Amino acid sequence: MTENRVAVVMGSDSDLPLAEKATDVLKAFGIAYEARVLSAHRSPEAVWEFAVSAEGSGFAVIISIAGGAAALSGVIASATRLPVIAVPAPTGMAGGLDSLLSSVQMPSGVPVLSTGTNSGGPANAAYAAARILALSDAGLAEALKRHRAEMAGKVADKDAAVREKLA
Amino acid sequence: MTENRVAVVMGSDSDLPLAEKATDVLKAFGIAYEARVLSAHRSPEAVWEFAVSAEGSGFAVIISIAGGAAALSGVIASATRLPVIAVPAPTGMAGGLDSLLSSVQMPSGVPVLSTGTNSGGPANAAYAAARILALSDAGLAEALKRHRAEMAGKVADKDAAVREKLA
Amino acid sequence: MTENRVAVVMGSDSDLPLAEKATDVLKAFGIAYEARVLSAHRSPEAVWEFAVSAEGSGFAVIISIAGGAAALSGVIASATRLPVIAVPAPTGMAGGLDSLLSSVQMPSGVPVLSTGTNSGGPANAAYAAARILALSDAGLAEALKRHRAEMAGKVADKDAAVREKLA
Amino acid sequence: MTENRVAVVMGSDSDLPLAEKATDVLKAFGIAYEARVLSAHRSPEAVWEFAVSAEGSGFAVIISIAGGAAALSGVIASATRLPVIAVPAPTGMAGGLDSLLSSVQMPSGVPVLSTGTNSGGPANAAYAAARILALSDAGLAEALKRHRAEMAGKVADKDAAVREKLA
Amino acid sequence: MTENRVAVVMGSDSDLPLAEKATDVLKAFGIAYEARVLSAHRSPEAVWEFAVSAEGSGFAVIISIAGGAAALSGVIASATRLPVIAVPAPTGMAGGLDSLLSSVQMPSGVPVLSTGTNSGGPANAAYAAARILALSDAGLAEALKRHRAEMAGKVADKDAAVREKLA
Amino acid sequence: MTENRVAVVMGSDSDLPLAEKATDVLKAFGIAYEARVLSAHRSPEAVWEFAVSAEGSGFAVIISIAGGAAALSGVIASATRLPVIAVPAPTGMAGGLDSLLSSVQMPSGVPVLSTGTNSGGPANAAYAAARILALSDAGLAEALKRHRAEMAGKVADKDAAVREKLA
Amino acid sequence: MTENRVAVVMGSDSDLPLAEKATDVLKAFGIAYEARVLSAHRSPEAVWEFAVSAEGSGFAVIISIAGGAAALSGVIASATRLPVIAVPAPTGMAGGLDSLLSSVQMPSGVPVLSTGTNSGGPANAAYAAARILALSDAGLAEALKRHRAEMAGKVADKDAAVREKLA
Amino acid sequence: MTENRVAVVMGSDSDLPLAEKATDVLKAFGIAYEARVLSAHRSPEAVWEFAVSAEGSGFAVIISIAGGAAALSGVIASATRLPVIAVPAPTGMAGGLDSLLSSVQMPSGVPVLSTGTNSGGPANAAYAAARILALSDAGLAEALKRHRAEMAGKVADKDAAVREKLA
Repeated sequence: MTENRVAVVMGSDSDLPLAEKATDVLKAFGIAYEARVLSAHRSPEAVWEFAVSAEGSGFAVIISIAGGAAALSGVIASATRLPVIAVPAPTGMAGGLDSLLSSVQMPSGVPVLSTGTNSGGPANAAYAAARILALSDAGLAEALKRHRAEMAGKVADKDAAVREKLA
Repeated sequence: MTENRVAVVMGSDSDLPLAEKATDVLKAFGIAYEARVLSAHRSPEAVWEFAVSAEGSGFAVIISIAGGAAALSGVIASATRLPVIAVPAPTGMAGGLDSLLSSVQMPSGVPVLSTGTNSGGPANAAYAAARILALSDAGLAEALKRHRAEMAGKVADKDAAVREKLA
Repeated sequence: MTENRVAVVMGSDSDLPLAEKATDVLKAFGIAYEARVLSAHRSPEAVWEFAVSAEGSGFAVIISIAGGAAALSGVIASATRLPVIAVPAPTGMAGGLDSLLSSVQMPSGVPVLSTGTNSGGPANAAYAAARILALSDAGLAEALKRHRAEMAGKVADKDAAVREKLA
Repeated sequence: MTENRVAVVMGSDSDLPLAEKATDVLKAFGIAYEARVLSAHRSPEAVWEFAVSAEGSGFAVIISIAGGAAALSGVIASATRLPVIAVPAPTGMAGGLDSLLSSVQMPSGVPVLSTGTNSGGPANAAYAAARILALSDAGLAEALKRHRAEMAGKVADKDAAVREKLA
Repeated sequence: MTENRVAVVMGSDSDLPLAEKATDVLKAFGIAYEARVLSAHRSPEAVWEFAVSAEGSGFAVIISIAGGAAALSGVIASATRLPVIAVPAPTGMAGGLDSLLSSVQMPSGVPVLSTGTNSGGPANAAYAAARILALSDAGLAEALKRHRAEMAGKVADKDAAVREKLA
Repeated sequence: MTENRVAVVMGSDSDLPLAEKATDVLKAFGIAYEARVLSAHRSPEAVWEFAVSAEGSGFAVIISIAGGAAALSGVIASATRLPVIAVPAPTGMAGGLDSLLSSVQMPSGVPVLSTGTNSGGPANAAYAAARILALSDAGLAEALKRHRAEMAGKVADKDAAVREKLA
Repeated sequence: MTENRVAVVMGSDSDLPLAEKATDVLKAFGIAYEARVLSAHRSPEAVWEFAVSAEGSGFAVIISIAGGAAALSGVIASATRLPVIAVPAPTGMAGGLDSLLSSVQMPSGVPVLSTGTNSGGPANAAYAAARILALSDAGLAEALKRHRAEMAGKVADKDAAVREKLA
Repeated sequence: MTENRVAVVMGSDSDLPLAEKATDVLKAFGIAYEARVLSAHRSPEAVWEFAVSAEGSGFAVIISIAGGAAALSGVIASATRLPVIAVPAPTGMAGGLDSLLSSVQMPSGVPVLSTGTNSGGPANAAYAAARILALSDAGLAEALKRHRAEMAGKVADKDAAVREKLA
């Protein structure tokens, strides 16, 4: 396995803020990644070239961020045997219903795994990638357990603060 | 121009009944067509091969029928300079909202032209293709005008029948 | 400038920013156009007069921009044999679901071809008009191919920039 | 005022079952009506001819039944100063959301008054027409009051039956 | 008939801006009106008292403005034989889908006539009231015809301006 | 049987199958109830009479079943200080979105508590009533705990069966 | 019964403004409460610990505020026999449709009672809790009646102001 | 690692037909699995016990099938560091919008990966599990590549048949 473990592909550089939420999580877990701008509709050859060579390039998981008629995730999933995690970008159409439905409603045989259109989506794509990679990385598995405990701890701190504040 | 003027592409052979509604109209106007089953997700290479060679194959208009995460129309539109008309297939998701949104919400520069998810959609894709071809085919233009008059005539007949029936 | 012009009809002058996105694209391709404000509900006679004479006026394609109960596209399509491309304007109703549904759900025989409610919609109506006109205009066909390559090139530039930025 | 008081216009003869629910109510109140099949998209000239002459033909209220991209009500409302009551036909799109939104979202100045897409819609269009006509028809006003009491009586009967049945 | 011809009822004084759009139109047509704040849920007795006495108070048409679980229109319609026109207020739920559906989906026998949730809704309620009153008021009928011509004239002016601007 | 009874009010006798799902649960817990058919729109006086006297009649909780423009729950809640539990009936509008939204979107101060539009809704209204009554009924509290254990036991049985079946 | 009567649980401290709307109402009625931050997904053990001990801790009613995939209410309801009132937080997804549907669509046997996603939701959860507690608290029952009269009085004041303002 | 590699958890035995679509795919790939019926709401202790011990039990991936307020996937994801794939079951609410939204809209830190509500969803959960397991299983990786080629071959066969049929 090479150093590049997760590909973070966005359909447009306007998705950069979402991509950074994902790469921040990957960085925190010490997971190598590469970020790309590839458009299923505007640069389809580049998407295809990326997708068919993703496995050979040493990627294990692909995170795909796109909005609207979000074909990116499905197109990549059609060209590789790697797991593809979609982040449907929020849009003006009911908050991203277009992005979500065009990501998940895939035909049998070509799976796309989608997170939500909410603010947690991009980070969760990275957390899910970490969960997948942790299947064969004991250190990452430990890091995920620590993260789980830290989350619970932070909620407990907020709980204590709010109990006092609203008492 | 060759004999094949309109390509009617469906994402699955379960879309055959929709495709036949379109080809029935094309036949009625004497427009040559070729029907294909090509899946953006299950046979992406075949879609790409079709789309990049569509212009050279003598096609002028492409009708693309797909449901769910309907990437087919957008993928074809990304590979050709021909006009692409989408027929979003009705589905269990609010009647085809997934098909419709994944067909129309395209990024600037890669146009997909969509009909509805209702029963008139497939035929209207063919009527629209006829309107496009009629721009350089006077006989077809005349046929479209006759069709318009015939439609109005049929409604008038129904009007007469209903006026009597509900009097 | 060819003889075949494109009419860009908007239902209200509040749609002007959308119309300009379309005319900017038409200008870039050197396609002659005429912009109109015609309301299916407030000035129906003017719509009708425009639509029935559109063919005789030398128009080849009609782009129709309207929001809400967007009857404009369907009414024009009912009066001409020219292809009609709808741009459903975004609204407060789930981002333009009203505009979209009232544009696409046409009865068999009277086709309206719709773009999306997203920001790419108005430009895509113009790109689609260019694709239609290019069927009989080799220069325009070449321009569309150049545009396709330029789009891919711009995405590639952004890709390079993001790869560096998020490395 | 002539005998024809209410026009019941349907966009297609497939709307006949809905129209009959409306005419049954009109008959029960002794309100004269005329039923028409007129399609905003397939026979626009007939719609226009009907609408501009509706006032002169002695109609006081127009009930307009249409589904999908339901332009019929708005087009009629644009051509007459008579009150227009829309019945948005149920469809496969979330039960008629397309019909409903394309009926109600009218621009300021051209009012369409809509009933629901549910089974009560067509009858309610007729009851509403009766309420409007009753403003200058004391007998009809009395009949509406009796109808109100009868409805309450029927519910009371069902109440008694259910109280016993579920006791 | 007394001077009070149209009642404009709002469910909350937060609906005042919507109510003023309606009363502005009524004023322009010289139609007498009375504006009320009555809440189906917070002051139900006041709503009932208003509704059952509306006819006796000389009202001919009731405009009812409410948002969310908009029971106001239906409750009023259940208590009077006068025509009730609902204005579903826009909300955060998909732009007012809650207001719209709770206004229109009435059971057979108790009609509510709804305008849209868009910016034209409140004014259109007033225009519709004017259309109803004009059935027995020749002056108002003339005023509505003038208004129709003025609307078309204004669109024509905008058309001329835009044709020049976008030439 | 306690003194505190539950009223199960339905807006139409077509809601009877839903009501029986609720009364079956109440019976199983030995909770006294009374079933009523009362329509907010068709028999508003009867609704009001019921609601204002509900407390005096010995009711503790009111279950209100209605579909479409489901004003029943809100109207009852406006007339009593008792807790009101709505069961939004499933409809053709996206499965009951109209019923649900017209039940929950209440103004501050007049609470309606809603179950879902799914098949569990009516029974859950009864279970919720039982939970409320159990606050002052130790026997009922015990019965609820037994029910909870029984549910888990039934799922465990199904788990065992499925584990074997799909092994 | 201890002093802690109502638990106000929020899934995140970003829900604090909603929680305060609820606690303000509880304070106004003199109802003891405790506010907690407990996340069904981030601190599930804390949620469980809270829920199984809620009855023993002296709570009578649990208000649960959460947005998005709002599992909090259902999880708590699965662990206690106390009534659980959900406040679905508004979100970017059509205004909170995700929160609402994930709160109400519970399986038979595990009731969650939901308020709306609108601004009245959090306060109404508290008003509903008050109604439940008032079943065994005559003073609270009186306070609720006073509150009802005060609401009607405030609307009457606004009515008087608006009648004058829009006269 | 034990033989049990994938857990297929369903919230109710009514989800059995969906589960079998997933296990059929797993069987075809020779992937060991265990099927369970565990309800987040009816048997929460069993869900928790399963989820916290899933890693130790030798599971690598968890497929979770649930409908309505589908808390199952999120609850499991909160208790394990394994990847969790949700299958939102289709429902009467717009085809499963409730299941989908309650599956994907998770808070940052607790990822759920969702397939669609369409007929391809359950099988795709299994295909996605296979993709994840194939990251460390060369034989499975090869099988996935063969499957991809077989899918394309089947579409090609259908293409040939349809080309002939519709010629």
